[in-house]
Amino acid sequence: MLDAEQISSLQNDRIKNLVKLRNRRPRDQQRIFLAEGYRAMSRALEKGIVPREIYFSPDWFQGENEMDLLKRAQSQGSKLFEISKIAFEKVAYRDRPEGIIGIISQWNYSIKDLALSNPPFLLIVESIEKPGNLGTILRSADAAGVDAVICCDSVTDLYNPNVVRSSTGVLFSMPTVMTTSDEAIEWLRENSIRSVAATPHASQLYTETKLTGPMAIIMGSEQFGLSEKWLEACDEQTRIPMAGQADSLNVAMATLVTLFEAVRQRSAPQ
Amino acid sequence: MLDAEQISSLQNDRIKNLVKLRNRRPRDQQRIFLAEGYRAMSRALEKGIVPREIYFSPDWFQGENEMDLLKRAQSQGSKLFEISKIAFEKVAYRDRPEGIIGIISQWNYSIKDLALSNPPFLLIVESIEKPGNLGTILRSADAAGVDAVICCDSVTDLYNPNVVRSSTGVLFSMPTVMTTSDEAIEWLRENSIRSVAATPHASQLYTETKLTGPMAIIMGSEQFGLSEKWLEACDEQTRIPMAGQADSLNVAMATLVTLFEAVRQRSAPQ
Repeated sequence: MLDAEQISSLQNDRIKNLVKLRNRRPRDQQRIFLAEGYRAMSRALEKGIVPREIYFSPDWFQGENEMDLLKRAQSQGSKLFEISKIAFEKVAYRDRPEGIIGIISQWNYSIKDLALSNPPFLLIVESIEKPGNLGTILRSADAAGVDAVICCDSVTDLYNPNVVRSSTGVLFSMPTVMTTSDEAIEWLRENSIRSVAATPHASQLYTETKLTGPMAIIMGSEQFGLSEKWLEACDEQTRIPMAGQADSLNVAMATLVTLFEAVRQRSAPQ
Repeated sequence: MLDAEQISSLQNDRIKNLVKLRNRRPRDQQRIFLAEGYRAMSRALEKGIVPREIYFSPDWFQGENEMDLLKRAQSQGSKLFEISKIAFEKVAYRDRPEGIIGIISQWNYSIKDLALSNPPFLLIVESIEKPGNLGTILRSADAAGVDAVICCDSVTDLYNPNVVRSSTGVLFSMPTVMTTSDEAIEWLRENSIRSVAATPHASQLYTETKLTGPMAIIMGSEQFGLSEKWLEACDEQTRIPMAGQADSLNVAMATLVTLFEAVRQRSAPQ
């Protein structure tokens, strides 16, 4: 039914490349990344992202809708490859393979291309280390309705398989920019966007900080928090009150809480 | 230096039991659970929880402080067992073993034993399925300073190794109760504690719902949300506004946002 090239050899170059793409360097050199599983592939298509290539192995399918999804992808331009059960096991990076993995083109927006709402509402994160945190942060940003997420001096890249997975498809729709802190600081100034940095050392509570108007919330890395550069460049510092042990809120949780306080303030009657 | 029994055989009954304890039934039958890693063990001791037994294997130690920790535990009553590198690999459930795993006694508080602050502030969760979510919920509850977390009709048990890990030690200090929804509903009535249920179908926004006074926030399961029982028994229903895709906030994230709105309201000048 499907017009798919058949691959069974583990030595096939395409199979080998799928394994390589778990690493950042080949991802960035080829300007592509992997998305695995039925949900990821279906979310990508929903959001108008058409995988260049999809590799599938019906032996691993867990539901009934995989073939329809593949047909839809093919009709939109995805090239399909049917691979053997063993070959799929080799290329799958998830614990429970679902028999579908796709290759998607990277996009690299420049900060200058961002479409801003009026007033702008942005999230900036500095040097996030864990892909799972970055994925969760993207989900929170989506739920809060920010214009874009700006990732400065990134440690994990946006296209890490665990960012793709933990973002549950948000990666495919949330405008994201990878840039340097210097460029982001410059850009905030040029666009007259206030920056509010979250840090446990601030004296002002986040609920008492003005989070309305043209504004970016700035969050630091898991281990080190925000750099001196951002603490100096920001317009204001703010903190979340903590009742329990110091590390109960990680960076993803602190981001979520701060974003939703901003949502509350921004939707309150003026 | 340390007075520890030596175990090298993989067939040793204690080694076999450590593997068994990854499963709920033997955990509940023996009324004990596992905590693995330097941080978990050290957090337990900090909070006055003394592991009954600690198994260690210096070949896996990642830092310098493990021996001090073991001495401290031993002086407080933990029985120590030094096991071979291979045996430790077998008993470790974490990806990167740190050479320390302990057995801790379960506690089973009754809902009637809970110490409440004035006014009471509680979190009730129904049928949470994923241990990682329950652990994160405990962290959020800790950060928000709730009196206790009441787990109704639990799917995952409190002592699942992934709850222990993802709670980052909060499990050792946060009062937690496992009970039925029926008992919890009855108890709330007897104690005149208002219940506010979070559900995407509510018409009222969580920021417009009164979350002060004697109050419990009620959160449902990942897949099914709250049961009819809770939706009928609660005093009020509330929802979090969602800008993006419907599932961007999972139950752990929704719990965090709701708890911190309660903290904001409860600390605002009356």
